[in-house]
Amino acid sequence: MNDFKTIDFKNDKLILIDQTKLPLEEVYIETDDYNRIAESIEKLEVRGAPAIGVAAAYAVALSFKNQVENNDLHFQNVYERLRQTRPTAVNLFWSLDKMKNVFNSVKFSRYIYIELLSEAKSIHQDDIEKCEKMAANGLEIFDSPKTVLTHCNAGQLATGGGGTALYVIINAFRKGLVKLVYADETRPLLQGSRLTAFELEKANVPFKINTDSTAAMLMSQKKIDMVITGADRIAANGDAANKIGTYNLAVLCSFHKIPFYIVAPTSTIDSSLNSGKDIIIEERSKTEITKIKDVQITKDKYEVYAPAFDLTPNHLITAIITEKSLHKPPYKF
Amino acid sequence: MNDFKTIDFKNDKLILIDQTKLPLEEVYIETDDYNRIAESIEKLEVRGAPAIGVAAAYAVALSFKNQVENNDLHFQNVYERLRQTRPTAVNLFWSLDKMKNVFNSVKFSRYIYIELLSEAKSIHQDDIEKCEKMAANGLEIFDSPKTVLTHCNAGQLATGGGGTALYVIINAFRKGLVKLVYADETRPLLQGSRLTAFELEKANVPFKINTDSTAAMLMSQKKIDMVITGADRIAANGDAANKIGTYNLAVLCSFHKIPFYIVAPTSTIDSSLNSGKDIIIEERSKTEITKIKDVQITKDKYEVYAPAFDLTPNHLITAIITEKSLHKPPYKF
Repeated sequence: MNDFKTIDFKNDKLILIDQTKLPLEEVYIETDDYNRIAESIEKLEVRGAPAIGVAAAYAVALSFKNQVENNDLHFQNVYERLRQTRPTAVNLFWSLDKMKNVFNSVKFSRYIYIELLSEAKSIHQDDIEKCEKMAANGLEIFDSPKTVLTHCNAGQLATGGGGTALYVIINAFRKGLVKLVYADETRPLLQGSRLTAFELEKANVPFKINTDSTAAMLMSQKKIDMVITGADRIAANGDAANKIGTYNLAVLCSFHKIPFYIVAPTSTIDSSLNSGKDIIIEERSKTEITKIKDVQITKDKYEVYAPAFDLTPNHLITAIITEKSLHKPPYKF
Repeated sequence: MNDFKTIDFKNDKLILIDQTKLPLEEVYIETDDYNRIAESIEKLEVRGAPAIGVAAAYAVALSFKNQVENNDLHFQNVYERLRQTRPTAVNLFWSLDKMKNVFNSVKFSRYIYIELLSEAKSIHQDDIEKCEKMAANGLEIFDSPKTVLTHCNAGQLATGGGGTALYVIINAFRKGLVKLVYADETRPLLQGSRLTAFELEKANVPFKINTDSTAAMLMSQKKIDMVITGADRIAANGDAANKIGTYNLAVLCSFHKIPFYIVAPTSTIDSSLNSGKDIIIEERSKTEITKIKDVQITKDKYEVYAPAFDLTPNHLITAIITEKSLHKPPYKF
């Protein structure tokens, strides 16, 4: 892992690197206020499905740091507040439900904060270990040094550990199996040119940033050997929701006969959904299109269509790599 | 046509709407300095293959507005200066060569400025007429009201007349044949969210802006009936160079079985090139990726890959619409 921390817990406070300011400034947010953490998730100061899950777990614990009047009511409020921060990332609900189970068993304990914190730390530790296992399982897709394209950021900044898709790439690079990485800049929030570039710089991996729609030309020029992305939610049949533009890449890979991989922990899999059609796709504010970093690009009154995620059908995914194994189609989770 | 002028000539001065400031400000540049016009082309204050050709023709004429010492040497300098402003748009070379022919026949005339200006005006008028014919020919692809997606800006702002691809769309809208337009925002320079949106607003056409990579999701949702774009250079076999991201759309259309059309005047066709492989693709400054409107997004030192155009092979193009007719494959120009 690199020399920065996405999520850290020290002196009874959660510390988050403010991802909206990267890569130009490395600023950390330090708080013990669960509502501030909820805001951090909403404002994408912390983002990435696994990282959101870890941050939300700490938020639940911290909300019990001081004595609370009505435990049940308080828990319910905190739980609902956090659930509503982001609709697509299933890790958030998975993590909150784990905290709920612990809450139900310790709600009368005087050590409730310690108990909840212990569960949050365990979720965090679990995430770290899953990342290591995904990175190891990911080596299977490299038989020689490759040029890889990735989309959005699915690295250390997106998890409590080393990362999902990007950690597979960085781990393979360290073993001499990655020559060069192309990073889609990933409009509208530019996680590729800001966050993935930052992580690749820190890991000394050679990379180039490209606009999202340049990926097609790169593939036609035979400059890309494989595409690897993360996922925000995966249905039982392997359909995957991920950052808008991922489906675009999957179609391009299919057309150019290039393998397309997804890397995600099993906490991203929502087996209750038979197919991706049931995944809720979050729409983002139109100002993510009309403004960039508070600079007005076009008129705010213009209509926009700004889904945050798209859906890649299972038949376009060469393999899904989890901490358990490398899964091939037909998927059945 | 709309109530703004892309290129106008009045009182012996060229007037250009500054496209870098649109849609937030409607500012006009007024100049009789050919070098300032060359700069305008380089800085994309005026852009779009046909508009560049018209602006360059006026620039050549204006360079002879005052008496010139050595006509031949002066013409050669002006010609070379303008040729080097943009490498891909063949209309620029076509237009400059028309001016060169006229220059050679009038270089000893005392009315050289008037003669050259007359040719520039004729190139401009020719462009206006070609746009009208393309818009009329384009109606052929609509059999009922459609939802259309377009990329970059191929409208009035890209030509001396009403436009190419966007004028086909606006003309069809006026005949009740377009329901809604999706405009790719078109990174890196956002001609879609700035310029196409501005033109559609002026023409009262309902539209939505989307990030470039959202086009794939729109197609999978069956929200798009057809894609129409312009072109910067077309080879004899129909291979077409256009704004980066166009090839992406052509692949998506092929995958989703949606027709993909190109609209361009015949001055965009370079019959000297057998195939698109011989088209020079301009690379743009890395700061178009690392900065947006002078706002720093990511580190300037990061490597980028920023081609301005990509190449769409002829077999992905359903038809090419010129002022002459609607051409279907196999193309032979």
